[in-house]
This record gives sequence, structure tokens and C-alpha cells, in this order.
Amino acid sequence: MSQTFLQEERYRIAEQLVNVSQNFANKGWFPATSGNLSVKLSHEPLTFGVTASGKDKEYLTIHDILFVDGDSKALEATQLKPSAETLVHAEVYKRIGAEAGSVLHVHTIYNNLISEIFAEQGSVVISDMELIKGLNIWEEGATIEIPIVENFADIPKLADEIGKRLDPRVPGVLIRKHGIYAWGDSVASAKRHVQAFEFMFEYLFKYLQFQRSAGEVPAAVGNLR
Amino acid sequence: MSQTFLQEERYRIAEQLVNVSQNFANKGWFPATSGNLSVKLSHEPLTFGVTASGKDKEYLTIHDILFVDGDSKALEATQLKPSAETLVHAEVYKRIGAEAGSVLHVHTIYNNLISEIFAEQGSVVISDMELIKGLNIWEEGATIEIPIVENFADIPKLADEIGKRLDPRVPGVLIRKHGIYAWGDSVASAKRHVQAFEFMFEYLFKYLQFQRSAGEVPAAVGNLR
Amino acid sequence: MSQTFLQEERYRIAEQLVNVSQNFANKGWFPATSGNLSVKLSHEPLTFGVTASGKDKEYLTIHDILFVDGDSKALEATQLKPSAETLVHAEVYKRIGAEAGSVLHVHTIYNNLISEIFAEQGSVVISDMELIKGLNIWEEGATIEIPIVENFADIPKLADEIGKRLDPRVPGVLIRKHGIYAWGDSVASAKRHVQAFEFMFEYLFKYLQFQRSAGEVPAAVGNLR
Amino acid sequence: MSQTFLQEERYRIAEQLVNVSQNFANKGWFPATSGNLSVKLSHEPLTFGVTASGKDKEYLTIHDILFVDGDSKALEATQLKPSAETLVHAEVYKRIGAEAGSVLHVHTIYNNLISEIFAEQGSVVISDMELIKGLNIWEEGATIEIPIVENFADIPKLADEIGKRLDPRVPGVLIRKHGIYAWGDSVASAKRHVQAFEFMFEYLFKYLQFQRSAGEVPAAVGNLR
Repeated sequence: MSQTFLQEERYRIAEQLVNVSQNFANKGWFPATSGNLSVKLSHEPLTFGVTASGKDKEYLTIHDILFVDGDSKALEATQLKPSAETLVHAEVYKRIGAEAGSVLHVHTIYNNLISEIFAEQGSVVISDMELIKGLNIWEEGATIEIPIVENFADIPKLADEIGKRLDPRVPGVLIRKHGIYAWGDSVASAKRHVQAFEFMFEYLFKYLQFQRSAGEVPAAVGNLR
Repeated sequence: MSQTFLQEERYRIAEQLVNVSQNFANKGWFPATSGNLSVKLSHEPLTFGVTASGKDKEYLTIHDILFVDGDSKALEATQLKPSAETLVHAEVYKRIGAEAGSVLHVHTIYNNLISEIFAEQGSVVISDMELIKGLNIWEEGATIEIPIVENFADIPKLADEIGKRLDPRVPGVLIRKHGIYAWGDSVASAKRHVQAFEFMFEYLFKYLQFQRSAGEVPAAVGNLR
Repeated sequence: MSQTFLQEERYRIAEQLVNVSQNFANKGWFPATSGNLSVKLSHEPLTFGVTASGKDKEYLTIHDILFVDGDSKALEATQLKPSAETLVHAEVYKRIGAEAGSVLHVHTIYNNLISEIFAEQGSVVISDMELIKGLNIWEEGATIEIPIVENFADIPKLADEIGKRLDPRVPGVLIRKHGIYAWGDSVASAKRHVQAFEFMFEYLFKYLQFQRSAGEVPAAVGNLR
Repeated sequence: MSQTFLQEERYRIAEQLVNVSQNFANKGWFPATSGNLSVKLSHEPLTFGVTASGKDKEYLTIHDILFVDGDSKALEATQLKPSAETLVHAEVYKRIGAEAGSVLHVHTIYNNLISEIFAEQGSVVISDMELIKGLNIWEEGATIEIPIVENFADIPKLADEIGKRLDPRVPGVLIRKHGIYAWGDSVASAKRHVQAFEFMFEYLFKYLQFQRSAGEVPAAVGNLR
């Protein structure tokens, strides 16, 4: 690849992250400059673009994105510092392979609530919702189980724990009282997956609260039917 | 009709869907590229414009809308694929007739919650709310009953079940843990109906939860007075 | 006044309604084309600009506003039809006098909830909130009582009942399962009053629900301390 | 400093307040023209820019910001009146010192709810949330305690009480049924702190309500684990 082509390709995919960033920012999903976003540039060897540390995702530009290799090292000299959590992105790309073309990480009220309420079980089960199709899962009456991992402060350990729990069929992992990492084969599908998860988390929280407020505790908590 | 006139007419009504799409997108009513929108072009024979499958309704353009006949077949060669749920739109146009000039389908947290809470009864009853006038129902103390159908994965079956439950007076049908189909004689009135339904669903959910949280269970659940 | 001057004055105050309309529309306070807004042009005789019937307040322009006299009759020939509820606006201007320079009417989830929860008492009491200062009430530990009237379908009767309950100190009246009418000496202060009321209604609903969810029922419901 | 340089510096930092104001306004955090914002111009002697009294923060411009000294007196002749609460800003700058470069004050539903629910304890404790890192607190399993003061109508007394409770490690103080004052060494970090606090307040309120709705009362209310 010529250097010019490579630069254009980088701009093109960085632009995709800027667009999804603006979409999620409008929904309030990047509180306090939190969250990070990445998109794969090449699979072998692994290289990807990722938002730099500490940037305000509410006002992201393509100049806030740097390109790194599979060890989270910058491909070229840059003033930008990769986010510490870049390791988690790399872990997802390595474990999931071609099906992971983009990884998105957001902190929302409802993913934090669900991650805490179901923390003891280690996962949350959702059944029979139309929005499961938003994850590209089409079987009738489908059930999904989203893993929940503890929020280890040590990022290599966090990345390792997330890596162990990844399920290629269900493109997301919750971290307790922290947020979600979700992926897709493109930025568009990763974005669709995040929106589908967040819809289901908000629904599930409100539905469970409704049941509990009248003393009804569902037989299998987390199984909505 | 000349070909030029027809093309202009198509652009004009496609533009109306783009506008309502942006309005609903700003309210978060198209999670994960879900939802679909249509507007009637002619009644005999039935032809209508409908959003193509898989398009992101948050960024819809007139080029994402195709025109189909009553069998959901494209009127002309096109790269666009009609959404599988186009069958439901056609069913509404056929059953309701002239009163259906546009059909809108959205997935929201509150229409999902109401569709599940009242699923066993098969419908939800709402009384005495000012917003019922938003459905163009003006009698004093009006009561409406919105049908709820199961979320059949088989779309022809789903369309058939919806068709059986349509009530020309109440321009909407809920699908369990899925969403709402609502219609009106124009895009503007279909939009007004969706907004009226969604307001009443959110009100009803929050009001019922308030009652339940103190152990009050309304005599007739769903009848708010 | 010259005709030109009068026309410019009308545009100027119509523009103020357009601005407040956009502000409230962004907050979702005009579901299903509901709501209406007015601003006084002259006190003796009473003339005011008011939004025409059926206009979508999410996309209001100055051409959707007509000018009427104290009997809600248009001052000049126009295609626009005054909203039926223009009578309520006129009632407020007549009863409140100079302190009412603008009247704003919105339907929100929380004003509907509060209007129903406290309907039997006929009013809702709020105490000790900082936002009470948003109503231009500055005494320490202030308490306000907002009247709630039944939602009469007969608009002259509704206007009459609202007129009987107006309290010049507390610039708003709730209508059961309908919405609020609030006023101020200018569009800016009427807007400030609506925002203050809506903040307090949402707070009060969530606070009461929180108390009830643990079996605590406040001694005086509606008195938050 | 030359007069020209000083004027440019003032514009530059006033512009930062305008930007954060727009960001918070979009989140609905300035109901009824409430709230005020400031940014430090010099430390010795203390001078800072602050939003003028009564301005609508939803439409703030740099011309709504005036510059005052440590006694809240305007540095130069101006039509603008400093907000009465400018005293609180000055108190924070004096007590915190170099770590306070900007002070932001907002009224939100959730900071009002948390301030009331935990008022008797005089503070609210939050533990183990990822968003605590948004306060630049990085230790594992960190716990923060946010002071809550009564809402004294007398502003010098309010400023004094706030001053006594300031904790340099936790950059915010709640006022009962009123709002929060938060600070940071720059406008950007003060903004990040406000967003982190507000996220945690909304999470905590919803989590506590969820627990209470099933009769679970956490051993240590306010300690989420």
C-alpha cells in the first residue's frame, strides 16, 4: 500500500468513529470524557485506530484518534497517548478474529445498573425480545446471555478476564459498575449492537422494577418470561 | 400521469418520511436501525413507498425509500430490498382503506413495557386522557382499547394476526416486546398518533408503577380511573 | 400606531413565541401537536397573539400565529383558526391583568402524573425547593399550592373553572390528566415559570415514589418535608 | 499585562464558559434560568469571570459574563449584575486555591433527590464506581463522601457553610433541594467532575429505589456495596 492510500484509509475509518461518537454523545453515553472507540485497520498483523486517552468524546475529531499495533503501541510517532483500556480492544480483536472489525465501549446508567443487579450471577439472560434481532440473532424465541466481569483496576487482568468470557454469538461483555464493551464486523454493526444492548438493559431494569414493586419476584431473575 | 410527475410525487412523499424519521430518531425511537415507515402513493391499485431493509433510520435519506405494490414487490428495478415487515404495512393499507395514508412502526421502551405488562389480557385500555384527542377522538371521557398481538417470527402470520385485530377507530396495534404499528390518513396524522400513543404509554407505565409501589392494585388494571 | 409599526410589533412578539416553542419542543413538551402559546399585544382593549389550531409546535413559524381580541375573535381576516383553548388564555389575561403578558400551555408526563395523583385534594403543595425562586417567590422556606381543576371537555366551562382558581402569586394551574397553563409578565418569565414547575413536578413524583417504595407515606402527601 | 491582552484573555475564558453552558443546557441542567458558572482569571489577587444574574444559561453569550474581584465586586463599570451566589464561587476559590480554576453550579433532578434523601446524614457516600475516576481519583475500590449542606437563604451564611465542608479530594458540595457546586483546575475538568457526579447520583437513586422496591434496605444506606 502506498503511504498516501494508507493515510486516506486511516482518515476514512477515523471519520466513522467520529460519527458514532457524536451519535452516542447525543444520547449521553460518554459521561465525564469516559468511553473509548476503535476500528480495525488490518487483521494480520493486527492494527487499529483508537481514541486517545482523556479526549472528550462529546467533541471528538479525527485528530483524537491514533493507530496502534496488537501490543497497543502507536504505529508512528504521535503526541497522542493510547487509552489504558486499548488492551481490552486488542484482546477482543485477537479472540474474536474477523467478526470483530470495531469495538465500542460506553458507560450508561442502565448498563451500570444491570451489571450490578446481576453481578452475583456473573451474567444476565434476556429472552424473546424483538431487539435481539439487532444483534443479528434471528432464531424464534432466542435467548442471550451477556457475561458480567468484575471491574478490575489492573487493566491487563481486566482484559484477560474479558477475553475468557467472550462469546462470539453475543457481541458484548458487561463490566460491573463500569460499562459495556461491544463489537461488530464494522463500525455500523458495532453501533447497532450497542444500541440494541442498551435498549434491552433499560427495558429489563424497568420491567424488573415494575414486577418487584408489587412483590412479584420472577422465578428466574433475568429470564423475562 | 407522466413519468416526470410521478417521480416528483415520489420524491415529495419520500421527503415526508425522511422528516418524520428525523423527528422520531431525535426521540430515540429507532434503536439498532429498527423500525420502518411507509406512505401510500395510490389506493387502487395499492402502491406505497417504504423504507428499505436495514437502513439506519437515524440518518435516513429519500434514497433509502423504495416503492412497492400490494404484494410488497418493488415497482421498478432497484438495489434496495423492501423490509420483511412491508407485509404488515400492506395489510394495514388493505384492511383500513382510505383512512390509512401512512403507516409508522417504532420500537420504544414504553411500548415494549406496556405490550408485556398487558400481554395476557390481549389489549390495554386507556381512559380520560387529554392526549386521546391526539388520535382525533373527541367524545368526553373517551376510552380506547389498543390490541396486543404476540410477536410471531413468521411475518405473514404476524401480518395476518395484526390484520384480524385492527380497529379503525384506534389507529395502532402493539406487538409483544416488539413495538407499535400506527397509521393515519397522512404522514402528519400518523406521526401525531404515534406521539399520542407513546405519551400515554409512558404515563400509564409510570402511573401504574406509582400505584403498585404502595401496594395499590387498580381494580381494573389498565383502566386508569 | 401606524399600520407598519403594528405589523413589526406583531412579528417581534410572534418571534418570541416561536423561540419558546422550539425550546419546549426540544424537551418533548408538545406531544401530538398539543399545547398552545400566547403573548399579549395590548391590555385595554385586550388583544393577543396565539398559536393557531392544529399547528405542529415542533415546527412552529410566525405564520402559525394569529392575533385575536378578548372574545377570541381574529383581529383581521386570516386563514388561521384560533385554538378552541384560546378562551382559557383570554380568561387568564382578564383575571390576572398586567402581571400576565404571556400564557403558555404544555402537556408533559410529569404534569399529567402530578395532576392525577393529587386530583382528589384539588391542589398540590410544594415546599422549600430552591426552584420556587424560579417563580419569583423569594421568602425563606416558601410553600406554594398549585390548583388542579377537572378536565372539562366544554372549553367555556374549563376556562371558567380555571379562572375561579387562579392565584396571582403562583403563576400556574394544572388540569387533570391534561397539562398546565402558566403565565408571566413576559414570554421570558412565563417560560421560566413553566420550566420551574416542570422541574418541581418531576422531582416531586420521583421523591414520592421513592418514599412509597419503602412503605413510607409522608404525613402530609404533597408536603415534601 | 496590556489592556488588549487582558481583554483577549477575558474573551478566551468567557468562551469556555459559553461552551460548557451549552453542553449542560442540552442536558436540561439549567431549569428556569438557574445555575451559574465561573472561571478564574488570576489567583493573587483573586479575579474571576462569572455569569451575570438572571441570564438564561440556555442561550448564554460572552456578553453575559462579567469579571469580579474576591469581594464579588465588578472589576470595571458594567451594566451586568453579578449573581448573588458569586460569593459561593469566591469562597471555593479562596479555600481550594490553585486546584480551583473553575466553579460550576447546576440544578438537576437527581442532585436534588440525592441531596434530600441523604440530608439527615449530612453527606452521601459512593463506592467502587468506575466513574469515580472521572473525579481524577484512581485508587482501587475508592470511596468518596460528598458533603450536603442546608439550603440557607442567606447567601453569606450559605457560602460560609459550604466553605467549612469543602474537601479538596472530592470536588463538589450538594445543597439540599437546591443543586451542586463543583470545581476543577480548569473549565474542562470542572465540567468532567459535574458530569461524573450527575451520572453517579442518577445511578445511586435508581439503584436504591430498585433495592427498596423489594423491601431490601442496604445495611449502610449510601454505601452501594
